[in-house]
Amino acid sequence: MATETLSQEEIGLRMMGLQDHISAGLENLDGKAAFSTDPWQRPGGGGGRSRIITNGALLEKGGVMFSAVHGPVTERMARMLDLPGTTFYATGVSVVLHPLSPHMPIMHMNVRYFELEGGTWWFGGGIDLTPHYVVPEQAAWFHHQIKAVCNKTDPAYYPRFKTWADDYFYIKHRQETRGIGGIFYDRLGPAEGKTKEDFWALAERIGHLFVDVYTHFAGLNRHLPYGQTEVNWQRLRRGRYTEFNLVYDAGTKFGLETDGRTESILVSLPPLASWEYNNIPEPTSKEAQTLGYLRKGIDWLIPAFC
Amino acid sequence: MATETLSQEEIGLRMMGLQDHISAGLENLDGKAAFSTDPWQRPGGGGGRSRIITNGALLEKGGVMFSAVHGPVTERMARMLDLPGTTFYATGVSVVLHPLSPHMPIMHMNVRYFELEGGTWWFGGGIDLTPHYVVPEQAAWFHHQIKAVCNKTDPAYYPRFKTWADDYFYIKHRQETRGIGGIFYDRLGPAEGKTKEDFWALAERIGHLFVDVYTHFAGLNRHLPYGQTEVNWQRLRRGRYTEFNLVYDAGTKFGLETDGRTESILVSLPPLASWEYNNIPEPTSKEAQTLGYLRKGIDWLIPAFC
Repeated sequence: MATETLSQEEIGLRMMGLQDHISAGLENLDGKAAFSTDPWQRPGGGGGRSRIITNGALLEKGGVMFSAVHGPVTERMARMLDLPGTTFYATGVSVVLHPLSPHMPIMHMNVRYFELEGGTWWFGGGIDLTPHYVVPEQAAWFHHQIKAVCNKTDPAYYPRFKTWADDYFYIKHRQETRGIGGIFYDRLGPAEGKTKEDFWALAERIGHLFVDVYTHFAGLNRHLPYGQTEVNWQRLRRGRYTEFNLVYDAGTKFGLETDGRTESILVSLPPLASWEYNNIPEPTSKEAQTLGYLRKGIDWLIPAFC
Repeated sequence: MATETLSQEEIGLRMMGLQDHISAGLENLDGKAAFSTDPWQRPGGGGGRSRIITNGALLEKGGVMFSAVHGPVTERMARMLDLPGTTFYATGVSVVLHPLSPHMPIMHMNVRYFELEGGTWWFGGGIDLTPHYVVPEQAAWFHHQIKAVCNKTDPAYYPRFKTWADDYFYIKHRQETRGIGGIFYDRLGPAEGKTKEDFWALAERIGHLFVDVYTHFAGLNRHLPYGQTEVNWQRLRRGRYTEFNLVYDAGTKFGLETDGRTESILVSLPPLASWEYNNIPEPTSKEAQTLGYLRKGIDWLIPAFC
C-alpha cells in the first residue's frame, strides 16, 4: 500500500470545498433563492458551516452541511462506536433537499471521514433518492449513474453498497424502504486494500454526482403540473421520511445522543409533513404504484426499467 | 392486603368502557365531527379498537385507542421489559388530541395495565398538557386538577408523579420539556401497598379528568382569534411533539420494536407539522415566553401562577 500522505486537515479542507461545489451548483439550479451560511463552533472542539436554502423556486428547504469536529472520545461515544479511543476527528458533508414540487424527489447524500488517535481511520458515505412518485425509468437511470461512479473505484462496490443501502434505508415498522435506495457504505479503511486518496476520490465523485443527478431530474420534472392531491401525498411521504430519520438513521441517532448540534442534525426534517390515520391509496392509483416500488432487493439495472 | 378479585378480563372491559366515556365526551365537545371506529386483531393474540376523529370543529385530529393484547413474551420484549416471563397480558387506553386552534393545547393521556404469567402485575399511566402557547394560569389550573385526582389515591403521588413527568416528557436534544407536564407513573404494583382496585380507581379518575379538562379549556380558548403567525408556530410545536414521540417516547419505542400495530401507535403524530432551520422567536414575543415555560421543575402550584 502507498504511504498515506493525506492528513485529516487536508480531508477537512477538501470536504469544505465539496460543500462549496454542491451549494453553488444547487443555488444556480434553483435560480431564485440563495443559500445562507451559518458558521458554528463545537464547545468540545472544531465546528462547522451550515448552508440553508428556503422558499426557492425548486427547493422548498435544503441543507448542505459541512463539519469538522474533534476532541476527547466520551464514554457514550465509545459505546456507540463500539471502539476504544482517546481522541477523535470527524469531518463530512451532508445534503438533504426537500423540493417544492411533488414531482421532484427528496434527495440525500453524505460523505464522511473518521479518525481515532492511534491510526484507526475510515470513510463512509451514501447517496439515495426518495421520489414522492417513483418513475421506474428515472430510478433505473439513477442507479446506472451511481454504478458508473462506484466502478471507477471498484466494480464490486455497486452491488455491495446497493444492498447495504436497501438494508439501511428501511422503515421496519412500515415494511417500506425510504425511497428507491442508492448506495450506502461505512467504516471502509485499510482492510479494503485502498488508500485514503482512493476513498476521497469516491467521496468527491459522489458529491459531484449529487448536483448532476438533481440537475437532470429538474430538467425532466420541475415544470410538471400538480394539484392538491399530489401535495397531500408529498406531505405524507415527508412524514415517512421524518419517521426514518428520527427512528432509524444512525447519523441522526449518533448526533443527538452525543450532544451534536441539533439544528444541523435535524435540518433533514421537512418544511411541512403530515400524518393521516391508516391512509391506504386506491389499488390502481399512482400512489399505490409508488408504494409497490418501496421494497428491498429491486434490481433497477434490468432492461425492463430502462 | 385485600384479596385481589379483579381479573385481567375485567380490567380490559373497564378500559373499553373508559374509551367509550372519553370518545363520547370528546365527540359531544367537538360538535361537528364523529369518531370512526376501527377494530383490529393482533396476529399473536388479542386486539383493539381504534377511534379516530378528523377535521372536527375543535379537533383537527384525535385518537382514542383501546387495546387488550396477550401472547408469548418474545425475546425482544423480555429484553425491553428487563423481566423474564412466558406469557403476558396488556391492556390500556391512550388519547392524543391535535386541536385545530393554536390556542387549544395538544393533550395526551394513557392508562395501562400489564400482567405476566406467574402473578407479576402493574399499572402505569399519565396525563400531560402541551399548549402551543402557555398561559400560566391555565397551566396552574391543570396541575391543581391532577393534584386533586392524585390525592384521592395517595397524597404522596402528585409530587412524585409530577417530577416523573418532568423527567419523562423531556426533549433532551432541545433541552425543552414537551409541554407543561402533568403526571407520569409506571410499574406500580403490590409493593405500593395498594390493590388493583385502588390503581383502577386512579386510572378511571385520570380518564374522566381528561374530558373535563379539555372541556374547560375549550370553554376558555376555542373561539379566540388567530392568524398565520399562530398557525406557523403551532406547526413548529407539533414538529417538537413528533420529535419527542419518535425519539424518546417509551410506549412508541416499545410498540414499534415489538411489532405493535403501527397505525395505532403513530396516531399520536400531528396532521401537519413543520421544521424550520434555527427558528428563534423574538425575545419579548409570546412564542419566546412559551419557550421560557418549557423547563423541568416549575412548581405550578405556587400562588404566582394562580
